Amino acid sequence: MNIDACLEELNPKLIHWRRTFHAFPETGWTEYVTTYRIYEQLQALGLTVYTGTDVVETSARMGVPSDQELYASEKRASEAGVPEEFLNKVAGGHTGVVAVLKTGKPGPHIACRFDIDALPIEESDTYDHVPAEKEFASSLPGSMHACAHDGHTAIGLGVATWLAKNRDELTGTYTLLFQPAEEGSRGAKAMVEKGWLDDVDVFLGGHIGIEDLTVGQVAATTEQFLATTKFDVHFKGTAAHAGKRPEQGKNALLAAAACAQHLHAIAPHSQGATRLNIGTLHAGTGRNIVPDQATLTGETRGETNELNDYVFQEAERIIHGSASLYGVEAEMKVVGKGTSAVCDPEFTRMLEQASIRTAAITEVLPVLSLGASEDVTHMMNRIQARGGKSTYMIFGTPLPAGHHHPRFDYDEGVLKTGAAAFILLILECNQRGKQR
Amino acid sequence: MNIDACLEELNPKLIHWRRTFHAFPETGWTEYVTTYRIYEQLQALGLTVYTGTDVVETSARMGVPSDQELYASEKRASEAGVPEEFLNKVAGGHTGVVAVLKTGKPGPHIACRFDIDALPIEESDTYDHVPAEKEFASSLPGSMHACAHDGHTAIGLGVATWLAKNRDELTGTYTLLFQPAEEGSRGAKAMVEKGWLDDVDVFLGGHIGIEDLTVGQVAATTEQFLATTKFDVHFKGTAAHAGKRPEQGKNALLAAAACAQHLHAIAPHSQGATRLNIGTLHAGTGRNIVPDQATLTGETRGETNELNDYVFQEAERIIHGSASLYGVEAEMKVVGKGTSAVCDPEFTRMLEQASIRTAAITEVLPVLSLGASEDVTHMMNRIQARGGKSTYMIFGTPLPAGHHHPRFDYDEGVLKTGAAAFILLILECNQRGKQR
Amino acid sequence: MNIDACLEELNPKLIHWRRTFHAFPETGWTEYVTTYRIYEQLQALGLTVYTGTDVVETSARMGVPSDQELYASEKRASEAGVPEEFLNKVAGGHTGVVAVLKTGKPGPHIACRFDIDALPIEESDTYDHVPAEKEFASSLPGSMHACAHDGHTAIGLGVATWLAKNRDELTGTYTLLFQPAEEGSRGAKAMVEKGWLDDVDVFLGGHIGIEDLTVGQVAATTEQFLATTKFDVHFKGTAAHAGKRPEQGKNALLAAAACAQHLHAIAPHSQGATRLNIGTLHAGTGRNIVPDQATLTGETRGETNELNDYVFQEAERIIHGSASLYGVEAEMKVVGKGTSAVCDPEFTRMLEQASIRTAAITEVLPVLSLGASEDVTHMMNRIQARGGKSTYMIFGTPLPAGHHHPRFDYDEGVLKTGAAAFILLILECNQRGKQR
Amino acid sequence: MNIDACLEELNPKLIHWRRTFHAFPETGWTEYVTTYRIYEQLQALGLTVYTGTDVVETSARMGVPSDQELYASEKRASEAGVPEEFLNKVAGGHTGVVAVLKTGKPGPHIACRFDIDALPIEESDTYDHVPAEKEFASSLPGSMHACAHDGHTAIGLGVATWLAKNRDELTGTYTLLFQPAEEGSRGAKAMVEKGWLDDVDVFLGGHIGIEDLTVGQVAATTEQFLATTKFDVHFKGTAAHAGKRPEQGKNALLAAAACAQHLHAIAPHSQGATRLNIGTLHAGTGRNIVPDQATLTGETRGETNELNDYVFQEAERIIHGSASLYGVEAEMKVVGKGTSAVCDPEFTRMLEQASIRTAAITEVLPVLSLGASEDVTHMMNRIQARGGKSTYMIFGTPLPAGHHHPRFDYDEGVLKTGAAAFILLILECNQRGKQR
Repeated sequence: MNIDACLEELNPKLIHWRRTFHAFPETGWTEYVTTYRIYEQLQALGLTVYTGTDVVETSARMGVPSDQELYASEKRASEAGVPEEFLNKVAGGHTGVVAVLKTGKPGPHIACRFDIDALPIEESDTYDHVPAEKEFASSLPGSMHACAHDGHTAIGLGVATWLAKNRDELTGTYTLLFQPAEEGSRGAKAMVEKGWLDDVDVFLGGHIGIEDLTVGQVAATTEQFLATTKFDVHFKGTAAHAGKRPEQGKNALLAAAACAQHLHAIAPHSQGATRLNIGTLHAGTGRNIVPDQATLTGETRGETNELNDYVFQEAERIIHGSASLYGVEAEMKVVGKGTSAVCDPEFTRMLEQASIRTAAITEVLPVLSLGASEDVTHMMNRIQARGGKSTYMIFGTPLPAGHHHPRFDYDEGVLKTGAAAFILLILECNQRGKQR
Repeated sequence: MNIDACLEELNPKLIHWRRTFHAFPETGWTEYVTTYRIYEQLQALGLTVYTGTDVVETSARMGVPSDQELYASEKRASEAGVPEEFLNKVAGGHTGVVAVLKTGKPGPHIACRFDIDALPIEESDTYDHVPAEKEFASSLPGSMHACAHDGHTAIGLGVATWLAKNRDELTGTYTLLFQPAEEGSRGAKAMVEKGWLDDVDVFLGGHIGIEDLTVGQVAATTEQFLATTKFDVHFKGTAAHAGKRPEQGKNALLAAAACAQHLHAIAPHSQGATRLNIGTLHAGTGRNIVPDQATLTGETRGETNELNDYVFQEAERIIHGSASLYGVEAEMKVVGKGTSAVCDPEFTRMLEQASIRTAAITEVLPVLSLGASEDVTHMMNRIQARGGKSTYMIFGTPLPAGHHHPRFDYDEGVLKTGAAAFILLILECNQRGKQR
Repeated sequence: MNIDACLEELNPKLIHWRRTFHAFPETGWTEYVTTYRIYEQLQALGLTVYTGTDVVETSARMGVPSDQELYASEKRASEAGVPEEFLNKVAGGHTGVVAVLKTGKPGPHIACRFDIDALPIEESDTYDHVPAEKEFASSLPGSMHACAHDGHTAIGLGVATWLAKNRDELTGTYTLLFQPAEEGSRGAKAMVEKGWLDDVDVFLGGHIGIEDLTVGQVAATTEQFLATTKFDVHFKGTAAHAGKRPEQGKNALLAAAACAQHLHAIAPHSQGATRLNIGTLHAGTGRNIVPDQATLTGETRGETNELNDYVFQEAERIIHGSASLYGVEAEMKVVGKGTSAVCDPEFTRMLEQASIRTAAITEVLPVLSLGASEDVTHMMNRIQARGGKSTYMIFGTPLPAGHHHPRFDYDEGVLKTGAAAFILLILECNQRGKQR
Repeated sequence: MNIDACLEELNPKLIHWRRTFHAFPETGWTEYVTTYRIYEQLQALGLTVYTGTDVVETSARMGVPSDQELYASEKRASEAGVPEEFLNKVAGGHTGVVAVLKTGKPGPHIACRFDIDALPIEESDTYDHVPAEKEFASSLPGSMHACAHDGHTAIGLGVATWLAKNRDELTGTYTLLFQPAEEGSRGAKAMVEKGWLDDVDVFLGGHIGIEDLTVGQVAATTEQFLATTKFDVHFKGTAAHAGKRPEQGKNALLAAAACAQHLHAIAPHSQGATRLNIGTLHAGTGRNIVPDQATLTGETRGETNELNDYVFQEAERIIHGSASLYGVEAEMKVVGKGTSAVCDPEFTRMLEQASIRTAAITEVLPVLSLGASEDVTHMMNRIQARGGKSTYMIFGTPLPAGHHHPRFDYDEGVLKTGAAAFILLILECNQRGKQR
């Protein structure tokens, strides 16, 4: 099997898919068009494909948008050509796709995960931003694929294409998870709870970018997955005319402001890095009214689950203390949760050996630091808990701007490298399965 | 001239107008439909009527909404039946109407002011809220006449109707000002700067409500107009990934939170009451991004202009100090300004004497406290500066809920009382003019 | 009786006393030397004199200093020549003197109050400060008579001297209260609770200064006594090495800082002026230790008792909220309390009539505003509650610097005026008693 | 040379010295009695001994106490028996001792450093605290050897005793530095600037405790020396009567409170651990006076000099921003500075080899983390900059309570181990010198 020939054939498709998804960036749990396109593509390949409540556990989804927002997205999907029948399956924020290929031959059960959602960021339209220049920038105002999930999805379809084409030569079972709502650590748990990872032997995931590298460099494993908790807080006070009856107000804006301030003063921890961010604060209704409503969204992180728990527990106390400062009520809701995870080190050796078969991988780095959160950890931990092995790779590319930046972009050559890494590890696992 | 007979005839119209305006509440500088309806009505009465740039000085308007918001309101007005030709006159936030009646006979120049704008408040739809029960509640989501300007406008049309009908028996000149954008103290100055108050001898204004009183009680004058400055602040920082590069962020949310906190700690003043309110705060774009943008809207007030200046000057320093705490930039914009004012006391005597002619006024109170801001003060001060006399009345009514509250409402009997007070003071001034 | 002749004779003594007390300023509940000197002087005049637990109710004293501080002051008093026997009577912070003169003839019971304590302020030693120039400045580092209580005490002794000399011509009963610990509103209640004011008909008090006036001007009554509550807060957290174990600390300093911040943001009240001040904050033990202790001292005030209660209740909630922000414990202790009070207006007429008998009073002002707190209000209220009449005068003088300032001083001519006002009202009350 | 025999002989002295120093704990730059005792001891051993301006560069000392505090300490030293002649040499905060031994034979120049100052902590007097039970607890209220410098000094005298006794068998030159004012990172630089480390080949330092270990465990090298900057901030505002003229105050207490709050919210850094602590805050003079003075003491730290600089630069901006919030002035003074440092790894091997010669060292750990600041780094860096080698050891002992805790204590067996480690590395260096 000549890998590089396959990749060359695949490459134009990878780029086409990436640009298509890039131009239609849908945020978590509203990936209706994205889900439909993936589903159609995978079905055309002859794989067994699932979506809707078959792929995500309704109650395990976190941070699902409001009914209004879901409805607007469904309307948009309908206008974009998604058939009503399909929409009925995925409506109410049941996005994501799982494709399964059973070879019928004994062999390992390998799962690969690709995340598909976009970010609520307005994409740059300046000439020096390649998607703008080449006219595949976001067509949805306020949304953008600024974290490379467009590329991950493309790689996923590439891997699926290769699997379908080579099914006769493969052994074992393949589960491809196209996960919704990774941003905010909201979606992985809902797939895990549905049981998709329960009897998997090998788990493969990966991310484009992270560090400013060269196309061809691949980290076989990743460390420093920050455990994280995402939360919303709502403060409810009492409105009053700020000029005539200031003493009758219970000021929710000041409670939220105090809360943000004191949350950011949580002491660091001697056992490792922690983070807290209040990302948004919205309060008040009018200039001359004592504000009676305030909402903030935030997150805690820690190098380990324990460190994240430390920050989160401090935060809980501070939130309620802030409310009592201003005599208002606080309600806190956890809307996302990512754990820490550890990659199995044997993948380094495996990828080093396999990479000689392709020109698309020029260097295998044993490990890189993520220094951020990724809810793929729920999947990795589930598999390892049952004796399987997990890794999460990083696919190098130069980065003109950081992740989550309006000018985030990457070298499309990385798509081929990413696909190569998945394919080669699949082959390596097949090989080892045979040797056993 | 039998006043009470006139008022009885007028009363159904007053109630009709009030409910019509109540059902279509337009906020400051977007009162396109309201302006059109007033204009049409006044023209039908045979008065000389002005609107658009004839009534407001473009550059003296404060707190004009964004072009997008104006455009949406113009579209809404067009759909509501306002002719294009009329819309062209008032487009771009040039709302408000002035009607003039010259009797041709020597006599005082009397100006009456009625404010016409609504508030960005969602009206209550519960059964115990009369406008909901009687089905004239707001048809515009998020907007409401919660400060009785619907009633003021109705009274204004009532006064105009009475003037038109009795023009032959009157002397002197009459200017009726239907002022836009009183909320936020944004509109009066733009009419003053246009010169409408420059040669006025007597100025009459008034407000429904304020205190919980009985219909029939009227305060002939008002005290404690709080001087006020309305301002917006925008903080601009630097976004960064909150997990991966926290040190690269410049946190605009925390700067705004600190700003709100420290503004509310401005020391009180020994010379009288002061107020500061930060009414809204909006910051950040995403949960996991160090927030680079924050906007707050607020106001200062003082019993005198000096007291308001004291608070405002403290605020200016604090705003810039807060920005420097977090290494961000702050931009402050004054978007409204009301001064303090003092009513001429002779109106108490005048109204006491005149009120015996009507059953609609049962008690004349010499003075009531406003304890709030009203940009009518710009008009009052202009007239007094040129030797004229000004007053601002308060028309009593029971109040089921405070001003600016979703269930604000009043007894419609107050409309007749308000119209009576204007008409009687006009007659009294005519009388005195003749005696001189 | 020639008043001015008496005053001339008294004048050198008034000045001598004032300077003697000025040079030895003792703060509240440590006025051992001051008490001894007053006691000796009054006894020499033949009055019945009380001190120690006879004049203050032990448990009703507020804000008594620590045992160490009391002990150091007692030692200082002993070294300054106060006999052990006397010290035994007043030890443990039982300072203050009451002198009683019963004429045996029917007549009103008149009480006069003079406060005797100093402030914890370092006196100026610059040449332009008269006490420094004339060498009677404070001999006790860190303490100063910066609120004229030295003068009040001198006036009290002057009144006593005059009473003793004229006892045969007077009627009724006289109680002179030399009150300790007025600063911090700590002492008056302890005298009231001892019952000294229970059957008094007329109460007279007064203050030197307040406004920048001329010697000879006297306000017969005073308004705007701010109700006040004085409180201490102690925050107790957990120390930790700030570098090695930051997460183990519970930061009392930050809790206290947050508390001060949020207390100063209590909303103003529409019904009148309120105040809050955190005057001192002391926290922490070492630069590199998470601070586990913090203490703040503060006060609330209000134009009425209700307004003071509003602020105090807000403060209580905020103090506990601040503690919970940082996971520390807060303990709050009320250490002083002054109520509001209202002078009986008839004293204006009385003083106007009486003042024609002296050159020492050149103008009687009906009323001046205190705009501050004075625990004399406890006495005034007690007397009025039982049907008596109370006033509190203000004795005019130019003021080179404000009260509580290191260069506070006054024209010593005011001493004669103050004594005159007390004496004349006493005579007036005697006269009225006879007329009845 | 039988090391363990030497140590047995030395042991009673080590314990005696430790207890003597423990009972008389003097804080940085006031170690007059300590310096005198060390000086006398070293001179008796026949070493060349220096003190005063010979050992510290006057202008390079940081955080020198006020003249009053120095004066009081000098008086105390005089009363404790330090001769005037000696006091003249060290007066004004010129404490510390350097002893030099030149063998006259070629060999390496080895410097050993022992820090001698105590902490401003009140020692526990409970029975379960060994120094209290055995009656050698601090005799100076408010001061305590809670960081083992008493033991370091004892070990230093032990090493000196051994050197003196074995001088004929040794080669090279020995410089023993008894450094003042380590706490607050204030003293090391002043010795470095005096040139004592300029031609040293090998530098040895060490610390008792740090981790809870067993006596006999020694870390041959130390990592994670936090770079640190110690600073004081003084805020100067304007006092005013808090009730009568609140608007005239410029509140230094609130500026300091805001400063502490916002300093603790400095963002963490992705490149490593940082710390900030405000350890003390003292503000205000009286409960009812707007506070015009506030002082805070604090420190920044970072795993590297760059990280410490990041925090410090943020802090500088925040301090000035806080002042401008309240219209007060801020003055910041750096009073201590410690850099980061890296031990030379060869000492691990050396100590491992040498430790077989003694029972006092049972285990050599290659490296332990300090996780704190130590100004010994100035010395280590100076030597390495000139080609020499440096290490800093950690001597294990169980710890009943953490460093800087009122019940800090250690097993006195560690004194023998510490002395052994210094002596063995000295012998090892001698040996290597000969082999070269």
